[in-house]
Amino acid sequence: MSGNSFGKLFTVTTFGESHGAALGCIIDGCPPGLELSEADMQRDLDRRKPGTSRHTTQRREADEVKILSGVFEGKTTGTPIGLIIENTDQRSKDYSKISEQFRPAHADYTYTHKYGVRDYRGGGRSSARETAMRVAAGAVARKFLEQRLGIKIRGYLSQLGPIKAEKLDWDQVHQNPFFCPDADKVPEMEAYMDALRKEGDSIGARINVVADGVPPGLGEPIFDRLDADLAHALMSINAVKGVEIGAGFDSVEQKGTEHRDEMTPEGFLSNNAGGVLGGISSGQPIVASIALKPTSSLRLPGRSIDVNGNPVEVITTGRHDPCVGIRATPIAEAMMAIVLMDHYLRHRGQNGDVEVSTPVLKQL
Amino acid sequence: MSGNSFGKLFTVTTFGESHGAALGCIIDGCPPGLELSEADMQRDLDRRKPGTSRHTTQRREADEVKILSGVFEGKTTGTPIGLIIENTDQRSKDYSKISEQFRPAHADYTYTHKYGVRDYRGGGRSSARETAMRVAAGAVARKFLEQRLGIKIRGYLSQLGPIKAEKLDWDQVHQNPFFCPDADKVPEMEAYMDALRKEGDSIGARINVVADGVPPGLGEPIFDRLDADLAHALMSINAVKGVEIGAGFDSVEQKGTEHRDEMTPEGFLSNNAGGVLGGISSGQPIVASIALKPTSSLRLPGRSIDVNGNPVEVITTGRHDPCVGIRATPIAEAMMAIVLMDHYLRHRGQNGDVEVSTPVLKQL
Amino acid sequence: MSGNSFGKLFTVTTFGESHGAALGCIIDGCPPGLELSEADMQRDLDRRKPGTSRHTTQRREADEVKILSGVFEGKTTGTPIGLIIENTDQRSKDYSKISEQFRPAHADYTYTHKYGVRDYRGGGRSSARETAMRVAAGAVARKFLEQRLGIKIRGYLSQLGPIKAEKLDWDQVHQNPFFCPDADKVPEMEAYMDALRKEGDSIGARINVVADGVPPGLGEPIFDRLDADLAHALMSINAVKGVEIGAGFDSVEQKGTEHRDEMTPEGFLSNNAGGVLGGISSGQPIVASIALKPTSSLRLPGRSIDVNGNPVEVITTGRHDPCVGIRATPIAEAMMAIVLMDHYLRHRGQNGDVEVSTPVLKQL
Amino acid sequence: MSGNSFGKLFTVTTFGESHGAALGCIIDGCPPGLELSEADMQRDLDRRKPGTSRHTTQRREADEVKILSGVFEGKTTGTPIGLIIENTDQRSKDYSKISEQFRPAHADYTYTHKYGVRDYRGGGRSSARETAMRVAAGAVARKFLEQRLGIKIRGYLSQLGPIKAEKLDWDQVHQNPFFCPDADKVPEMEAYMDALRKEGDSIGARINVVADGVPPGLGEPIFDRLDADLAHALMSINAVKGVEIGAGFDSVEQKGTEHRDEMTPEGFLSNNAGGVLGGISSGQPIVASIALKPTSSLRLPGRSIDVNGNPVEVITTGRHDPCVGIRATPIAEAMMAIVLMDHYLRHRGQNGDVEVSTPVLKQL
Repeated sequence: MSGNSFGKLFTVTTFGESHGAALGCIIDGCPPGLELSEADMQRDLDRRKPGTSRHTTQRREADEVKILSGVFEGKTTGTPIGLIIENTDQRSKDYSKISEQFRPAHADYTYTHKYGVRDYRGGGRSSARETAMRVAAGAVARKFLEQRLGIKIRGYLSQLGPIKAEKLDWDQVHQNPFFCPDADKVPEMEAYMDALRKEGDSIGARINVVADGVPPGLGEPIFDRLDADLAHALMSINAVKGVEIGAGFDSVEQKGTEHRDEMTPEGFLSNNAGGVLGGISSGQPIVASIALKPTSSLRLPGRSIDVNGNPVEVITTGRHDPCVGIRATPIAEAMMAIVLMDHYLRHRGQNGDVEVSTPVLKQL
Repeated sequence: MSGNSFGKLFTVTTFGESHGAALGCIIDGCPPGLELSEADMQRDLDRRKPGTSRHTTQRREADEVKILSGVFEGKTTGTPIGLIIENTDQRSKDYSKISEQFRPAHADYTYTHKYGVRDYRGGGRSSARETAMRVAAGAVARKFLEQRLGIKIRGYLSQLGPIKAEKLDWDQVHQNPFFCPDADKVPEMEAYMDALRKEGDSIGARINVVADGVPPGLGEPIFDRLDADLAHALMSINAVKGVEIGAGFDSVEQKGTEHRDEMTPEGFLSNNAGGVLGGISSGQPIVASIALKPTSSLRLPGRSIDVNGNPVEVITTGRHDPCVGIRATPIAEAMMAIVLMDHYLRHRGQNGDVEVSTPVLKQL
Repeated sequence: MSGNSFGKLFTVTTFGESHGAALGCIIDGCPPGLELSEADMQRDLDRRKPGTSRHTTQRREADEVKILSGVFEGKTTGTPIGLIIENTDQRSKDYSKISEQFRPAHADYTYTHKYGVRDYRGGGRSSARETAMRVAAGAVARKFLEQRLGIKIRGYLSQLGPIKAEKLDWDQVHQNPFFCPDADKVPEMEAYMDALRKEGDSIGARINVVADGVPPGLGEPIFDRLDADLAHALMSINAVKGVEIGAGFDSVEQKGTEHRDEMTPEGFLSNNAGGVLGGISSGQPIVASIALKPTSSLRLPGRSIDVNGNPVEVITTGRHDPCVGIRATPIAEAMMAIVLMDHYLRHRGQNGDVEVSTPVLKQL
Repeated sequence: MSGNSFGKLFTVTTFGESHGAALGCIIDGCPPGLELSEADMQRDLDRRKPGTSRHTTQRREADEVKILSGVFEGKTTGTPIGLIIENTDQRSKDYSKISEQFRPAHADYTYTHKYGVRDYRGGGRSSARETAMRVAAGAVARKFLEQRLGIKIRGYLSQLGPIKAEKLDWDQVHQNPFFCPDADKVPEMEAYMDALRKEGDSIGARINVVADGVPPGLGEPIFDRLDADLAHALMSINAVKGVEIGAGFDSVEQKGTEHRDEMTPEGFLSNNAGGVLGGISSGQPIVASIALKPTSSLRLPGRSIDVNGNPVEVITTGRHDPCVGIRATPIAEAMMAIVLMDHYLRHRGQNGDVEVSTPVLKQL
């Protein structure tokens, strides 16, 4: 299958450019009988939506999703779910410059080399605008996982540039525009972002995502390990440059006696594995962390070339997020939901009648 | 397709357990006309082979690969290439204990919960022994990429526990048992490993892999971005807990003006992107880095449970690598080769007749 | 991937129910640079559209397709092409009966057993209405194949119930409402259909599809042979019960000396193979033939059961095609176009640089 | 995935050429806990084996299959099952002629145009010898389907050239070398084949396959309908030129009142559908029929060309089946078993928790 589909049994296929007529998505393989309405998706879409604070782009998109198929009398039917979001804020603009230049660190240069042509309006397909559809599709997966299996998927911003969250208070995550779980750090982040905006620069961020309540057994060794599919899903999000599971890069300096999560009848004693052993979920929380690079759309001039290879100086005007990481939390949650959903169905397909007498360990 | 296949056009499917009769692999989709013999694969297999220094497991496997199909008169025919390695060192052993216990941080517990049964001899399918087949398949991809496209894929150990390589001298990589590119650090590593072995503990490591000469245009946005598929491939290797592309987690603290790789007619001025922009190769070197956790097979006792949920103390005897990262370099190279090969064919399928007038930038 | 996608590199994924808000489709993997507008698809959609003669259903659907993405400045960009057709003729109706009954030979009973629920309005997903999207997607493939490779795909109705076309005059096919290539048989078909309509019964049909100009080399042995994928594609069309390639079932009584298509330097002497040898196109015309069953929506009462298993007598009112085969020609052409397109890209992916000195035989 | 894999959850990937070192196969996705040994496969392999009567090729292949992985302590573990059959009867032969010529109606010409090279020994990959692995893999599926679901898959030769079986007596099928279910026709078939062999010609055949006990609900509309996947699977068998489901091409002349299978609380009143409605199994027997062309390997001379396009006269010496249909019954059964198995797992994945109150109709 081509590159715009994700998932083998719960398959999400998307289309749409930043400044095209609409974004859309087909979810194929959703189990029937799930209560579903636009409201289920809108909640997450609104969390991702730009323009909700001064720290994100002031572009305004209603991001109203419509269900076109696959739901009947309020429930999924098992047939493909067609979704659409019409683009409403396509400000007319002079694209003559951007069409001939390559913005540094953008996909302009690579799309041109791959396809020979590109839709240069607002980044076209390479714009993060496409992630709206990931969030909509993820909301369907999330609802199923929560209702049928009790799985809860939550994310937060753990670092904004140099500022690290030091406390994890889930109740705080939605009390500030950063998805920051540490209330004490919010004023510092506010000040940092205000300065950055004045400066015209941008900054990176780190997002953590956690899934609680995942049963043991999900993941398909050896290539479609749960962690490998998570890495695939998370790295496919715009601007992501790194993915960790559990202890991640800290494992490099850990000794075996420190890293190994010992087990007792009462539960696992630690979770360096991040909930995945041998590529299969262990019943512990699935813990992933991602690095997002700073936005490359800056009004500070940068050196580049034009389509003929001549040197140019590029200044990006327009409305851009100075920290794309800020709005990335719902996107990362969505991708984790899609991966877990897909693996739940795949596992049920092969192993739906397996009975195991070994007790499932609680998480300590 | 199920979880033991990787790649969409260049598809590698493997089988085999640690202590089964044989390991095997089918490579489907290899272009015809490539000169290929067992020797092409044996070189890389020998680099991965255990027992070549005192710092790796003393288990001895000949790891002799045989080509069973798909090659005729010394050249690939375009039909599937069947490969086999017979297992020769299956020391008979008493498995009564291990069959009833779950080793901490191993896949014992999760395989049992997934499948209800498991082949407990030497870890069965979850053993890193399966990576031999990845190396064999990767060698085929590597040869094609090198001969036809001039792509060169090389890896090295950049960190062993607390010891970081500070110089990158490619000529050194094969002069020591660690794949370490910094000759000055080798004595330190030797001493560290000797102490560790006495102690009975294990340690993590970091491996970097670089592909030079990759043309711009490889990668299938939005889900099968080149970096996303690389993350999938690398995270699917045993013991890997983190993947970075280019600047990776350093991006979190970078500003946009620092991160963005400016372009001049002479070439890119930096490579924070790690050779991938918008999910598509830029023509710069592809740079990936992975974290490998410490081996969990320790003779130092650890707390665990048995299949009935009762507490047990586990001691792992037998022959194990105290640092699995040491032998991981050829495996990481192989996975990168397979990803690039697959994406080259996918790109040629869709865009085989695209002509681009924009010049390809050199790497500075 | 789930069941609503077709094709591996040129991938068509559809959604939509008969009486839902809209039908839609995503074409992923289309090569960039192809001139494309709605008009290219509308031509084929209009050929399939109901209500164009008294011999098809009088339901009126505008079937106006809109391109939502993937086309920029009149050309495909290589990114996914989103298509939509809004449903306009959703006559309000009393569904209370049909929701509780299973119409014989319809999918009502099987959808209920598979999914537990079903959208009973107009057959929901099982309605032949979904084939509109196949036709739209097929038109894209067809345009590429024709422009870039000179491939021409044409179909015709070769048999309507007991009446067989005896001449193949391509110019006649679009001169009558049956796609019949034999003008002499048209009056007979008219009379037959008029009688049938009075009677309240329905009838089967046979459609042939031919692709001229296909280069040798397309098809992926051994499972994705060109003929196997064609059989898959054609059998997936509503109401199809049989597929033949070339001589088809006549091969059963043929001797080898009769069946084998001999070759001379001037070309092949016959085409019993239907253009496929060993699963790969030979350069001869690809010839397929399909059987379509009679519509099961009859106003003549039939025995059935209701959802509780009680006996009922079913009468289908509403507007239905008395011969679904009549409108099936553009659908069969579309599926053949999609298969050839997909295989062209797959072949180019693996074998894009193969050079063959053996001459390509002309078709005699 | 490439063309040598079949199935999405129960995935069979094969390799091997007629005169290579070995044939092999990987079955990925088999549920764990199934008792499995070589004997389970050998039974079907022996039914397909050449040389068991004077009416098939006298080439002798032991066709002894070995399980290399995926089975532990007599049961499947859920990990990939590696299978191998070593080629033993590779009679050394002078291939100088055949390497330069294209046999009419063989894959020689098309393989050359696709790949540029070909393994000309015994047809290489295009030889029907590869079907041995389909039979081995099918035996695994068959065992699961029979043990867990009570599904029984059986085939028979319904027509040999002009001679049609007129009775279906399952007990007769294995009492004669033709898999003919009508004992009265066997002497006629014997005589026909003896005459044919003298003549040096070959003949086509028709095989029917029936699956009893298939539960309703299998099949993935709209593209992966059960009948579409069956058509794919059966058409992928060497020499098959046509596939029918249920009434097949007879549907063309049927009226709706005749074709539709009415239902009563006691069961379906007929089975024109062949057990599939809307692409989903109905609980009735799945009935498929295939046409096999006559072998093209004849000692009677035929016109052809050589690799340079010059005219040649081809005579095929060596040991060949005068009617490939005779040994095709176990192969067709195997492909049906693989399709049903795959669809059972796919259905369980998406709909594993669907509860349906509507009773399942018995077959009358």
